[in-house]
Amino acid sequence: MADYKRAYISQVSDFNNQKVCIKGWLQNKRSGGKLHFLQVRDGTGVIQAVIFKGDVPENVFENGDKVTQETSIEVYGEIREDKRSKLGYEIGVEDLKIVSDSIDYPITPKEHGVAFLLENRHLWLRSPKQRAIMKIRHELIKAIRDYFNNNNFMLVDAPIFTPAACEGTTNLFEVDYFDSKAYLTQSGQLYMEAAAMAFGKVYCFGPTFRAEKSKTRRHLTEFWMVEPEVAYNNHDDNMNLAEDFVVYIVEQILTNCRFELEILERDISKLENIKKPFPRITYDEAIDLLIKKGKDVNWGDDFGADEETVISESYDRPVLIHRYPAQSKAFYMKEDPVNNKLALCVDMIAPEGYGEMIGGGQREDNLDVLLSKIKQHNLPEEAFDWYLDLRKYGSVPHAGFGLGIERTVSWLCGLHHVRETIPFPRLMDRIKP
Amino acid sequence: MADYKRAYISQVSDFNNQKVCIKGWLQNKRSGGKLHFLQVRDGTGVIQAVIFKGDVPENVFENGDKVTQETSIEVYGEIREDKRSKLGYEIGVEDLKIVSDSIDYPITPKEHGVAFLLENRHLWLRSPKQRAIMKIRHELIKAIRDYFNNNNFMLVDAPIFTPAACEGTTNLFEVDYFDSKAYLTQSGQLYMEAAAMAFGKVYCFGPTFRAEKSKTRRHLTEFWMVEPEVAYNNHDDNMNLAEDFVVYIVEQILTNCRFELEILERDISKLENIKKPFPRITYDEAIDLLIKKGKDVNWGDDFGADEETVISESYDRPVLIHRYPAQSKAFYMKEDPVNNKLALCVDMIAPEGYGEMIGGGQREDNLDVLLSKIKQHNLPEEAFDWYLDLRKYGSVPHAGFGLGIERTVSWLCGLHHVRETIPFPRLMDRIKP
Repeated sequence: MADYKRAYISQVSDFNNQKVCIKGWLQNKRSGGKLHFLQVRDGTGVIQAVIFKGDVPENVFENGDKVTQETSIEVYGEIREDKRSKLGYEIGVEDLKIVSDSIDYPITPKEHGVAFLLENRHLWLRSPKQRAIMKIRHELIKAIRDYFNNNNFMLVDAPIFTPAACEGTTNLFEVDYFDSKAYLTQSGQLYMEAAAMAFGKVYCFGPTFRAEKSKTRRHLTEFWMVEPEVAYNNHDDNMNLAEDFVVYIVEQILTNCRFELEILERDISKLENIKKPFPRITYDEAIDLLIKKGKDVNWGDDFGADEETVISESYDRPVLIHRYPAQSKAFYMKEDPVNNKLALCVDMIAPEGYGEMIGGGQREDNLDVLLSKIKQHNLPEEAFDWYLDLRKYGSVPHAGFGLGIERTVSWLCGLHHVRETIPFPRLMDRIKP
Repeated sequence: MADYKRAYISQVSDFNNQKVCIKGWLQNKRSGGKLHFLQVRDGTGVIQAVIFKGDVPENVFENGDKVTQETSIEVYGEIREDKRSKLGYEIGVEDLKIVSDSIDYPITPKEHGVAFLLENRHLWLRSPKQRAIMKIRHELIKAIRDYFNNNNFMLVDAPIFTPAACEGTTNLFEVDYFDSKAYLTQSGQLYMEAAAMAFGKVYCFGPTFRAEKSKTRRHLTEFWMVEPEVAYNNHDDNMNLAEDFVVYIVEQILTNCRFELEILERDISKLENIKKPFPRITYDEAIDLLIKKGKDVNWGDDFGADEETVISESYDRPVLIHRYPAQSKAFYMKEDPVNNKLALCVDMIAPEGYGEMIGGGQREDNLDVLLSKIKQHNLPEEAFDWYLDLRKYGSVPHAGFGLGIERTVSWLCGLHHVRETIPFPRLMDRIKP
């Protein structure tokens, strides 16, 4: 079929009135009399292929009869404009080859339960809605990397295997590491602090792990996180960076994923609100706000999903909550020099009740203060010898944060549960397929 | 110091004859009479800061006396052209602030043993050579992602937790997964096959793990791999993709990392050779070549580091070796239709003895053949039920490969051992820092 150029559906506008070959799968079909309308997908889009009985040899029309959902097919024909379709083009079929059949494809257009769909995640990914989510995830990750690359950050991959150290082993996955034990990373932060002293502006981006026994709609055991860290940045620089970064990624999604957001029926106006400046409130102000809204909270309490939702409802864009009580935060958070009961940390809460997207802060750069914090938290000092070195040899103010990819995807897509935001979700009770 | 604009060293050409502030660390120092020459690094580069006694208050000149290696400093002054320096600019110091001192920094300019340097990896990263390697790694990863993004591949992150399945558990790391066991991924390939059926052209890029008890210079327990997979690609398409991809990434490194390659004293002419077409030889031809070179090999043998080096010495660019004996390859490799003793797989061997960079092939897309292979290899069929579904519902020819990041970095940089190609290397006997 040398006359037909191989084309992907996402590129058909370049092939108007030309003969092409599209290799894909049958998504759906309508037939009537002398016509078959095939919805053909190739992973980059969906095109309508029209088979008119009068135009094709008998066996080609019969192939149109035979094809079932997810049969793999090669469609040969001419691309022509079709203003009624979303794509703007259709293909007038001249030949249709069946590559391989598909009998009783399990995921039919009817409704299926989530357990069944997760069981068939390898097939579920083929559905238009799942494709839209994965495309948005793809564009989000691209936007994140572009942002840091454009701003001269160096990518420094953090290790996955770590010795137990950070904050106890309760939420850590333990691995048999030859004759010893290792733990899967929960965060690359400590490593990024070392890297920031070497390269100035750095980020890591990789999978992280939590062994929490949680089955909420916001928990995965394996999820991806991006963590920038900048030498000489202080708390305000850090909040500015987080804000600028989130504005950029939302802009990119709005520019590159209109079609996918429409498939997901996402209210785009909510994303179009995401402009600078984001509201910045202190933890104390957040407590006041919660009390005013009738929540039963006390100073010192941590905020759960409930409180985060109430706070987010007061704003039309992400809100930065900063200066939490130091007692509830990790040992490496820098004390507020104005009030040492507070830590120079910040959480960014997504709008519409999507919860915490970002957590970060300025790090303690004073060796003596850090040593006393390690003691206060009953942590083993020797596990942190290398981390303490960063304060011995040319310590500088520095700050950073982590953004969770799956929660961000769920917000951008307007999804209730994070399990659809990652290609192969890992949950307490699921590691297959 | 409002008159001084904050500048990064990589950008000083934009600030010629302007007053700037550079925040960094002291790398090295020369003093003589009325002059201090400070080599200041900020993670983006190194600049010479010149303190002339007659130009500055006494305490500033004294600070120049006092600063030791890796002291963190803020340098205020004017950028001026300096044709003798590599950077092309220096800074005439007007003020020098010491942020935090550094007493007895462990890594002095003298030689240190590798064990000591690995123990101090968090500090070793600050050395010029290590920075050059990490910058090349950064640019390599960027080039890889750009290549696939520019060519309309969708990023699909493969899971890290997997049920035991692929090829036995000997080389797998076992994890306590709640009340059960999980294993750390060795490859995302099977998942990418599912994703290719959904999205056409896909790639994953993440950490992978091998629990091999190997202490060679090519082994890490944790390493990064990129794995593209394309629906409707056959063996030749796959070799073309691998070739095009490698040419692109080498071009990008040559364009963006001249300075770093120079620091590493890399013979750039070797990289400039990397142009299409790459030699393609069959396994049979490789055996003949090895015998001609006096190696004692028999048909059916696998190639080790030794054989790979001998083959690579015959060519000035990467060589593609394809059609290995099927018996020595994984169950999912497609048989050569011309000779079913051979598999349609391919390895790309780096030049100069740097070993296998790429391994891949066309996958078996016939359900019955695949089932019989699973039996032949004594693998549990039920573990592959979802993978077999890909052959039941619209199977298509497809192919892909994996490229190991660390081996590629070691080749590009001309490094003997992969342990320097990753920020925090994990070896059999090392998971710290």
